[in-house]
Amino acid sequence: MAKKITGNNQYLKELNKAAVLDLIRQKKTLSRKELADLTGLSPTACGSITRELIKDGFLYETGQGESTGGRKPVMLELKPNSYYAVGFDIGMNELKMVIADITASILLQRNFEYSPGISAEKVIALIRDKFFETIDSEKLSTDKFIGCGLSIPGILDRNTNKIIIAPNLSWNEVDLGTEVSEALGMPAFIENEAMCSAICEHWIGKCSNIENFICINIESGIGAGIFIGDSIYRGYTGSAGEIGHLIVRENGRPCGCGNRGCLETYASIRHMLEDINERIRKGYSSDAIKPGTGALTWSQAVDAAYNGDELCNEVLRKGAVYIGYAVAFLVNTLNPEAIVLGKCFTDYAPLVMDTLVETVNEKSLKYPVSKVRMLTSEFGMNSSALGAAMIPIRKIFGK
Amino acid sequence: MAKKITGNNQYLKELNKAAVLDLIRQKKTLSRKELADLTGLSPTACGSITRELIKDGFLYETGQGESTGGRKPVMLELKPNSYYAVGFDIGMNELKMVIADITASILLQRNFEYSPGISAEKVIALIRDKFFETIDSEKLSTDKFIGCGLSIPGILDRNTNKIIIAPNLSWNEVDLGTEVSEALGMPAFIENEAMCSAICEHWIGKCSNIENFICINIESGIGAGIFIGDSIYRGYTGSAGEIGHLIVRENGRPCGCGNRGCLETYASIRHMLEDINERIRKGYSSDAIKPGTGALTWSQAVDAAYNGDELCNEVLRKGAVYIGYAVAFLVNTLNPEAIVLGKCFTDYAPLVMDTLVETVNEKSLKYPVSKVRMLTSEFGMNSSALGAAMIPIRKIFGK
Repeated sequence: MAKKITGNNQYLKELNKAAVLDLIRQKKTLSRKELADLTGLSPTACGSITRELIKDGFLYETGQGESTGGRKPVMLELKPNSYYAVGFDIGMNELKMVIADITASILLQRNFEYSPGISAEKVIALIRDKFFETIDSEKLSTDKFIGCGLSIPGILDRNTNKIIIAPNLSWNEVDLGTEVSEALGMPAFIENEAMCSAICEHWIGKCSNIENFICINIESGIGAGIFIGDSIYRGYTGSAGEIGHLIVRENGRPCGCGNRGCLETYASIRHMLEDINERIRKGYSSDAIKPGTGALTWSQAVDAAYNGDELCNEVLRKGAVYIGYAVAFLVNTLNPEAIVLGKCFTDYAPLVMDTLVETVNEKSLKYPVSKVRMLTSEFGMNSSALGAAMIPIRKIFGK
Repeated sequence: MAKKITGNNQYLKELNKAAVLDLIRQKKTLSRKELADLTGLSPTACGSITRELIKDGFLYETGQGESTGGRKPVMLELKPNSYYAVGFDIGMNELKMVIADITASILLQRNFEYSPGISAEKVIALIRDKFFETIDSEKLSTDKFIGCGLSIPGILDRNTNKIIIAPNLSWNEVDLGTEVSEALGMPAFIENEAMCSAICEHWIGKCSNIENFICINIESGIGAGIFIGDSIYRGYTGSAGEIGHLIVRENGRPCGCGNRGCLETYASIRHMLEDINERIRKGYSSDAIKPGTGALTWSQAVDAAYNGDELCNEVLRKGAVYIGYAVAFLVNTLNPEAIVLGKCFTDYAPLVMDTLVETVNEKSLKYPVSKVRMLTSEFGMNSSALGAAMIPIRKIFGK
């Protein structure tokens, strides 16, 4: 709107600063002349903005670029290790911490285990303790931190910025952002876990040049983070992406949501593992699963599948078929450029990707499915913590 | 981006003109002072823009508003009957035409029947003949037309602006926009039929203040038009909204798309009518459907349902249940503010709305479903033609 353009110079300057930073981020290195050409800003305005950004430690001058005639230009780049962000992924039995600088380079990654059922208060204390321990030992100063991102396995309300419900944590109505912000002394932003993974894919992963994509996380639940028009899509009140309750079988298995036949009951790792262990309890054995083997863990089941066990492969493939149903509906409905599957899915992707792609091709309309790229995340279980750390970083680039 | 703000005054002026027009559209009537306050434009800039808009016939001065102290201000409104747009909905056996002015007031509406299987060439000739006949008899001049919108029951490619496939018309790869534009001598825009209905709901219907909503059309097929962030959502290549092929029954009925158990095979009016007539053929009768009655038409079947016929009610209700499954997935995945159901659905909405809402409540997650409004369109079969006419109109308001 015109108001922003003519009425508020400070706002405009901040917008232009973010635009300058984002251009340098995308192009990696730019001269002041190239910046002025690309932004349409006057050389004076460009000079003033870059001077401030250098002074504040966001940019630095780095050697000289190619000359296009006269003097070789000085090049500008994002300054590494000047400002940091911290991201936390709050899982059912583990807190993952990531510290990254504004170039999105990962400084460190740590995991801290806890027992399921942990209270929000204890998680906040753990975040505070582990954060300050870590920056002390790394000799980082808090005033170098631009903010904190928090990945939550649950539904958030964008208006109140609270956690509405996080079933796997048994948390309701928690104002985690405010409390962590106070504990760490920096801005803190909460975000749904699958959306954090989508942010990770968009900022540093396979979807960095993709405007419309869906990131699907397979874990004990199944959720999606959606990007539309190069922006996070959260929906009317912030709960978009809950794809795990698509009914894939009428009158199918009972689900925790109260319905029957939900995608999660066939394709989440919790339910797939239950299926496998139930058959083992009933006496199933194979070359990979010897008689008398007790209940398998997830990684044992995946290993058995890689070792050719039929049951484990069958269950994983059946899960992939049902994920294919959901993906097909998403392809038909949203016509995305890419679908990226991650978290536990990366553990067994090589075993089921053919089945999944075949199902998606078969169950989607020909035109949209011919346009979509099916991808596997390269970040495995770390995508949400990485994405959480990127939330404050994105903000300085105006995203 | 900064470029637009500082580098291109003509572009900026057009943006400001559109913003001024859109504000007046939304507020119905505004003084120059109110406009300057709301836009942040200087009184001089505001005066210059409104002067041009009055000269060009988009605005007019209308009496005097409430004084807030000094002289009573002159008020500005959109000028009715100054510029028009024409919309065509190309159906399987009928062309619907709508002419509206820039205030979105409908000047006339006409329907022209034809036989199924009509060629694109014949439809273009019909559009040309009927348009010129009509404006001659209405004494309208073509230079008062800002453009034409075309509603197409098929998949479009936004890059080539062509129809990829329109199954019910048996058209492939038709460049209808270009050809109609040449035939009528004005810009012509093609748009998917369900998206045209969504545009209608957003511009003049129940969703005019709703940023995120989904408009679902039930006809011989089932499709959706999606608005996200107050804008049309088309997806990566323009085919978003094809919800009719959600698999609601594994290994269910065969569908024209090659799959089995698609939503359309249970809930489209074509299939519901087939179900009813098959039972009648097998001897079904009731108080509303006497023995010996032949195959029913759609409107006879709906009448029978209103007259209490059990079979017709059962089939319509079953269709509504399956639509409920699709709506529930859309609610979980996109967390929209509203779902509006239209086209043939308006014929029987009073009979099934309870069943539909009950299913959606049952099959969705509690939080997003508590936020969604379930609506029925007020435009019936006319929503696509009306929406098509709104496409060129929206453009002068910068949409």
